[in-house]
Amino acid sequence: MLENQALLTDLYQLTMAEAYYKTGLTDTEACFYMHFRENPFKGGYAIACGQAQLVELLETFAFTEPERDYLKTLPTATGSALFDPAFIDSLATLRLTLDIDAVPEGTLVFPNEPIIRVMGPILQCQLIETALLCHINYQTLIATKAARVCQVAGGAVAEFGLRRAHGPVGGILASRAAIIGGCSSTSDVEAGRVFDLPVSGTHAHSWVMAHTDELSAFRAFAATMPENCVLLVDTYDVLQGVRNAITVGLEMEARGQRLAGIRIDSGDLAWLSLQARQLLDEAGLDYVRIIASNDLDEYTITSLHEQGARIDSYGVGTKLVTAFDQPALGGVYKLSAIRHGGSSSWEPVLKVSNQIRKSTLPGILETRRYFNDEGIMIGDMVYSQDDPPDSDLIIDPYDELRRKELAGNRYTTLLEPLSRGGEIVWPKVTALQAREMCQRNLEQLAPYNKRFLNPHSYPVGLEEKLHARRAYLLHKAHGLA
Amino acid sequence: MLENQALLTDLYQLTMAEAYYKTGLTDTEACFYMHFRENPFKGGYAIACGQAQLVELLETFAFTEPERDYLKTLPTATGSALFDPAFIDSLATLRLTLDIDAVPEGTLVFPNEPIIRVMGPILQCQLIETALLCHINYQTLIATKAARVCQVAGGAVAEFGLRRAHGPVGGILASRAAIIGGCSSTSDVEAGRVFDLPVSGTHAHSWVMAHTDELSAFRAFAATMPENCVLLVDTYDVLQGVRNAITVGLEMEARGQRLAGIRIDSGDLAWLSLQARQLLDEAGLDYVRIIASNDLDEYTITSLHEQGARIDSYGVGTKLVTAFDQPALGGVYKLSAIRHGGSSSWEPVLKVSNQIRKSTLPGILETRRYFNDEGIMIGDMVYSQDDPPDSDLIIDPYDELRRKELAGNRYTTLLEPLSRGGEIVWPKVTALQAREMCQRNLEQLAPYNKRFLNPHSYPVGLEEKLHARRAYLLHKAHGLA
Repeated sequence: MLENQALLTDLYQLTMAEAYYKTGLTDTEACFYMHFRENPFKGGYAIACGQAQLVELLETFAFTEPERDYLKTLPTATGSALFDPAFIDSLATLRLTLDIDAVPEGTLVFPNEPIIRVMGPILQCQLIETALLCHINYQTLIATKAARVCQVAGGAVAEFGLRRAHGPVGGILASRAAIIGGCSSTSDVEAGRVFDLPVSGTHAHSWVMAHTDELSAFRAFAATMPENCVLLVDTYDVLQGVRNAITVGLEMEARGQRLAGIRIDSGDLAWLSLQARQLLDEAGLDYVRIIASNDLDEYTITSLHEQGARIDSYGVGTKLVTAFDQPALGGVYKLSAIRHGGSSSWEPVLKVSNQIRKSTLPGILETRRYFNDEGIMIGDMVYSQDDPPDSDLIIDPYDELRRKELAGNRYTTLLEPLSRGGEIVWPKVTALQAREMCQRNLEQLAPYNKRFLNPHSYPVGLEEKLHARRAYLLHKAHGLA
Repeated sequence: MLENQALLTDLYQLTMAEAYYKTGLTDTEACFYMHFRENPFKGGYAIACGQAQLVELLETFAFTEPERDYLKTLPTATGSALFDPAFIDSLATLRLTLDIDAVPEGTLVFPNEPIIRVMGPILQCQLIETALLCHINYQTLIATKAARVCQVAGGAVAEFGLRRAHGPVGGILASRAAIIGGCSSTSDVEAGRVFDLPVSGTHAHSWVMAHTDELSAFRAFAATMPENCVLLVDTYDVLQGVRNAITVGLEMEARGQRLAGIRIDSGDLAWLSLQARQLLDEAGLDYVRIIASNDLDEYTITSLHEQGARIDSYGVGTKLVTAFDQPALGGVYKLSAIRHGGSSSWEPVLKVSNQIRKSTLPGILETRRYFNDEGIMIGDMVYSQDDPPDSDLIIDPYDELRRKELAGNRYTTLLEPLSRGGEIVWPKVTALQAREMCQRNLEQLAPYNKRFLNPHSYPVGLEEKLHARRAYLLHKAHGLA
C-alpha cells in the first residue's frame, strides 16, 4: 500500500486542523462514529471489512519531512502560503493518541449502527476521517457483494476482476474483501502474496490463438500443467471446444492423469453447460468440472440455477470488484459527542437535517446484538455508553411507534478495542479467519433477512434513553424544546 | 504505488507463461492491442488515460527474489508445486524487450481503435496484460466521466471523492484522471503531492458542530483562514447559515478581507442557490461565490442549469470517482498477429465469436484521424501497418454497406512510441499538460458527437484491405472460405 497515508485525506481536514490549532481547540476531545444509512444493493445486510487497512494507516501515520515540505508549498487563491508554518511544524511531533473501537472484520452490520468509533483530540479524529472512510466503505461494499454472490452460487466462486478494478490497489483490496465475503480464491497473484489468499487460474483465449489449432493448444497445455488443467473451450466454437477437451481428457486418462475442468466464457451458459455435461458424461469424464464465467453476478447465477444449468463453479470479475450495480457505500463519519478542554463530561451532539434519515445519533455509541434460543439474530440495540441501558426495548429510529421488546434473550456487544491511546490492540486476523467469522454470522441471520427481493428488514432500534436524548436535541435544534 | 507490479497479474498469465516456456514458444512474437467495444456512459467518446502508470509498471517490472519465492510456494489442487522451479528461475533474468505504442493521455478515443499496441515475445506480452488493462480501463473511465461533468458545468469542478473511492490508490488515480478530464482541483492531498495537482477544500459540518453555534464557528474559521474562506452553510438550516455567512462576510470586509464563497451540500440546490444569491447580493456581497455539492453528476448539473440555479462552481465526489452509472470500462487486450520463431512475416489472427461485435481485428493496427478544413474531426480509419492504406475509404466494421470517403482531408496518426526494445521512450507529460491535450481534442469534436442524449456516432471504420482481411479470416474460421 502507500508507505504513509498521512496526506491521504481531503484538504479540508488539514485546513480545519489548522483552525483547531489556532483557535486553541487542539485538546477538545471528540467522539465520531462511522455508519451507513442503507444496506447496499437493496439487500438485507452488509459485511464489515477494511479494519486491517485502518490499522495499517494508524501504524504508519506521521507527518514526516516530505509531507510537511509538500504542505508548505500549497498556496491560497491569492498566491500566499495556505498554511501557517507554525502549524505545519506542530505536525512534526503529532502522534496519534486515539481510542478506536470497531466491529471485527466479517461481522454483519446494518444501517445506523456504529461500525467504527473514534475518540480523542478532535484534530486527530478529523485527520484520519477520509482514509478511514475510504478503506471501510470500499471493502465493506465488496465483501457484501461477494457474500451475496456466494450466497446463491452453491459452489466455489473465484474472483478474477483485477483488469476492471479501480486501480491496482483497488484490485488487491477487492480480492481480499471478496475472500472475506466468501470467495474461494482470487486470480490476483499480488493479492495472494500480500494477504495470503488462495489463488487460481489456468489459460486464456490467447493461448489457443497462439497455436495452429485448438486441439494442439489443449494438448500442449495439458502436457505442461497436468495437475491443474482447466481448458477454456470458447475461443472458436464451444461444443467443438468441449469435444477437443474430451479428446485431451481421454489422452490424460490413458496417462493416469485427470482433466480438472473446462471453462465456458461466452454464449448461453445454461444451455451450453447442459450440452457440455452430457458430452463429458457420455465420454466417461463425469469427474471433469464445468466452470462458467462472463459478467456474472448474484442475479445471473440465480437465473442459471432456475434454468437447470450444470455448473460446478464460477469465475466472477467485473460485477464483483466494481460492485457494479452500486459502486459506492455511502458510509459517513459523524461527530456524536464533544468534551471541551477541562470538562469531565461528554456533551452529546447531532447533525440536524430537514430529513430525519440524515440526522445523526448523539453519544458514545455501542451496539448490543440479541439472539434467540436457536442462536438466530433477532435484533440490535444502539445505545450510548455514557448512559447504559436499563431495559431491552428497542425503538425504530424513524418510526417511534415501532418498538420491539428483547428482554430475556442473550446478547453480545459488537465493538472491540482497536487502539488505546494510539497503541494498536487489535488482534491480527487473517482474511481466511475473517471469512469464517463472516460465514458464522451469515448462518445466524434468518433467511427472510437475507433474501434478495424485498428482504424483511432486520430490526435495529434505539435504546429508550438514546431515543429520548435524540428527540430532545432534535426538538431543541428546531426551536421546539 | 506498488513498488513492483510483476505479480499484479492474473495467475493464468503465469501458468500460460510456464506453458510457453516449456513448449518452446518463449520466442514466438506476438502483437496485442487494447481497445474497447462501446463508449462508456452511452456517450459519444472516451478520454484515454493511465499511460503514465503503464510506464511506471514497465520501469519497475522484475521478478526479484521475493516474487520468485512466493511463486514457489503456490500449490496445485493436489498439493504439489504449481510451477516448475526451472521456470521460476528463468524469470529471474527476464527483462522486458517490448515495443509498445500508445495514444497520448488526454486523446479522444472511440470503440474498436487500438489505444495501446504491444509487440514482442508472447510471454512478455501476456505478463503485462492484466496490469495494463487495470490502469488504462480505470483511468480512461474516470477521465471520460470528468470530461462529461466539466462539459456541462460551465464553471470550475472540484473532485472530492476520496472517501468513496475504491481504495486509497483508486482514490489518487481517480483524482489524477479527473484533472486530466477537466476538473480544476482535487481535495485529495496525497494525489496533489504525487501528481502535482491543484488541491482545494475548506471545512466540514463537524467544524460547525464542534462550536457552540454556527456564527461562532464561521467567525473562528474566517479568522484563521481569511484568504481561503468558503463557509459550509447547511449544518443546521441553509438560509440561516447564509445569513450567518453574510454577517461574517461583512465583518471580513470591514477588516479589508473578502469572503471567498459559501457551500451548500444538501437540500434543493436550485432553489437554495437562488435564495442565497439574492441574500448575498442584497448585502452587497455579490463577489461571494456559491459552491454546490451533494451527489452531483453531469445529469444533476444539467438539471440545475435548466432550473436557473445560481451556482458558480461544483464539488463532485462519489459519482465521479466511482463512475457510478457505469463503474467499469470493458477494455480488452487481444492477440492480433503472431510471428513464430524464425519467421520473417507476421500472421494476422483474430478471435472469432458468434457475435461479430466480439470478433477482433487482425494485424499490426494503427489509426488515422481525419480533419476537415475547420479542424473538426470527421472520421478515424483503423488499418494494419503491414499492409498500409492506398485509399481514404473507411468501412463500418459491423455494416459493410456503411462507407465514408475521406480523401482530400488532412490526417494524423494516433499511436506514439512508448517503449522500444523495453526502453521507455515516452515523453514525460504532467497531468495538467494532458488536461490541455484533452481540452484541445474536445474542441475538435463536433457538438453532435458529444451530446449526451443519443450522440451522433463518430465514424470509425476499417481501411479497405483490413476489412477484406477480416472478412476472409472470419469466413475461413466458419468453414466458408
